[in-house]
Amino acid sequence: MEKRITVNNTDLKTFVVGVLKNVGLSVENAQITTDVLISADCRNIESHGVARLKRYVDGIKTGIIKLECMLDIIRETPVSLVIDGNGGMGQPIAYHAMKKCIEKAKQHFMCFASIRNSNHYGIAGYYTLMALEENMIGISLTNSAPLVVPTFGKNAVIGTNPISIGFPGKNERPFLLDMTTSTVPRGKLEVYSREDAAIPDSWACDEKGNPSIDAAKVLDNLIARKGGGLLPLGGGIELTSGHKGYGLSAVVDILSGVLSSGAVGLDVYGKKGAPAEVCHFLGVINPEAFMGLDELQNNMDYYVQMLKNASKADGQTRIFVAGEKEYEAMEKNKTTVSLQNKVFNTLNEIGAEFGLSLKRID
Amino acid sequence: MEKRITVNNTDLKTFVVGVLKNVGLSVENAQITTDVLISADCRNIESHGVARLKRYVDGIKTGIIKLECMLDIIRETPVSLVIDGNGGMGQPIAYHAMKKCIEKAKQHFMCFASIRNSNHYGIAGYYTLMALEENMIGISLTNSAPLVVPTFGKNAVIGTNPISIGFPGKNERPFLLDMTTSTVPRGKLEVYSREDAAIPDSWACDEKGNPSIDAAKVLDNLIARKGGGLLPLGGGIELTSGHKGYGLSAVVDILSGVLSSGAVGLDVYGKKGAPAEVCHFLGVINPEAFMGLDELQNNMDYYVQMLKNASKADGQTRIFVAGEKEYEAMEKNKTTVSLQNKVFNTLNEIGAEFGLSLKRID
Repeated sequence: MEKRITVNNTDLKTFVVGVLKNVGLSVENAQITTDVLISADCRNIESHGVARLKRYVDGIKTGIIKLECMLDIIRETPVSLVIDGNGGMGQPIAYHAMKKCIEKAKQHFMCFASIRNSNHYGIAGYYTLMALEENMIGISLTNSAPLVVPTFGKNAVIGTNPISIGFPGKNERPFLLDMTTSTVPRGKLEVYSREDAAIPDSWACDEKGNPSIDAAKVLDNLIARKGGGLLPLGGGIELTSGHKGYGLSAVVDILSGVLSSGAVGLDVYGKKGAPAEVCHFLGVINPEAFMGLDELQNNMDYYVQMLKNASKADGQTRIFVAGEKEYEAMEKNKTTVSLQNKVFNTLNEIGAEFGLSLKRID
Repeated sequence: MEKRITVNNTDLKTFVVGVLKNVGLSVENAQITTDVLISADCRNIESHGVARLKRYVDGIKTGIIKLECMLDIIRETPVSLVIDGNGGMGQPIAYHAMKKCIEKAKQHFMCFASIRNSNHYGIAGYYTLMALEENMIGISLTNSAPLVVPTFGKNAVIGTNPISIGFPGKNERPFLLDMTTSTVPRGKLEVYSREDAAIPDSWACDEKGNPSIDAAKVLDNLIARKGGGLLPLGGGIELTSGHKGYGLSAVVDILSGVLSSGAVGLDVYGKKGAPAEVCHFLGVINPEAFMGLDELQNNMDYYVQMLKNASKADGQTRIFVAGEKEYEAMEKNKTTVSLQNKVFNTLNEIGAEFGLSLKRID
């Protein structure tokens, strides 16, 4: 087991905001970005938490991420927005766009935004949560660096392109799906590579396009651009329906990058040192567009209970509903959160430059 | 190889319309239903084609499917509809609802309809195609009989709940995804069962909830309600991300049945001899809500070509885009279509009751 270190959430917040302010973000944008990152850690999605701070800081320093966060509205109707993020930080861009969607959905029943020229925006589910907090239905999709190989291909052309969608409950917690359209995200290969364990053959393929069980080799190939990569949900062959995950990944690319005339597929992170041109698609649906909030919540409770109460497989004691594990983690990590030793040390190295340090409490 | 028989599409159409009129459908609704069925055969989705005519005829005779097709609009906003289908035929209900969505999307940029108390509506992609024919983005989802086992469960609680979404191209054909959220539909198990071949372990599970490679046993268990069933996209375990397919299936149930206060999960086809209470979710997005039709089509062409032109895996010569195979089948089957011998004979048995016969042309 890797060593872990516990920190206070408020200490962590002060520290990360401090770093982001020092590299030049406005207070508001530093706070938004920090909240997205720490939310990921609290929801046990460590791969998208403060462990990414270094990448963001480096991105800002090298100019790939612009400090200013100017949202240009390219087109607007009562129920839609096309936004240009002008290469700014992904988190504040998506946060402000989602706020606009919520406002418009209150007035006009729904709103969808397609956003171009942004950057990595953290966990997709954060923006869905923003809608859920307003008792609305939330949708959050983003394209990402090409790491996934389409069915019958051998090179990574599409992203892990996550889909998040959430519906509010009444007595039950919201249903909150947040999933990559690849079988697994890249981080899972890194874990297996460190442990030298074989990966299931639906996770990744080699440079010839054949399913691979060697995580280290797949990661090396991706870095050296030799071919191969992650596989879509369903795996690398039609027999196990890998073409469905590939299709869903393409839908995310289209809603995010095609509808906004932004970057898609290979063009995302397409030029080294140039803006990443990540695109997002956000949506909010007001329950009043359908049967209203009260019926929606009651119906959701009924449905969620039907799923949870279904008969369990031999050896299993629970059937989970999307988001349940993350909500339980969030409740557990309300005041403190544990970080990998390595992540804790890297944070302090980043902070040292600005005279900031993060203290451990265990 | 099973014997096949070729028929003329117009003969087939006249025959199926004739049968449906004779069991009591209006001319218009008989024509709509027939077009949905034959479109499936022409697109090589035989499981949802005229092979299903007997089930529809039986459904009407036993009163599970109502002859009248009355769409009650329960709630309406400029961009949404909640519709009660009053237990009528699924195809005309979904057809008329999609027509309304298209009209509203022309005026208000988009429209989504959640529909309750309907019946099996054929291929999801048919309604998406209706939007594509108007150069709009189409969405079509439906819940279905509970045949799929959620992750960590052992009984079928959710449907194969398909997702269809389509985007128009300019020189390229439209991108048209039409997929069940289970790894495979039930029909695939039937094929393997007939051939006595082992199925991949991500397709189905036994009555204890463990992955099974025995198609015949899984089908027997489903019929006898002994437990087990189809597995969600990604398979039966978390390691291969079966929980993602399960989550997507639930989203379809929620948009179709929860938003309309209709039936979900186990309640679909819940009582023998009673209305099936199938629910659908349809949507149309006008490209003018985003960058307009011209840019959308150009961007789609660019994206589709990027996918098609990507490097092929060893031994492969093509990368397909969603819907491509079905469009090619449709072009091939423009004037004639081939049916399984068994299907052809069953059609003539159904027709005999009304003095109708279908002639073969080979």
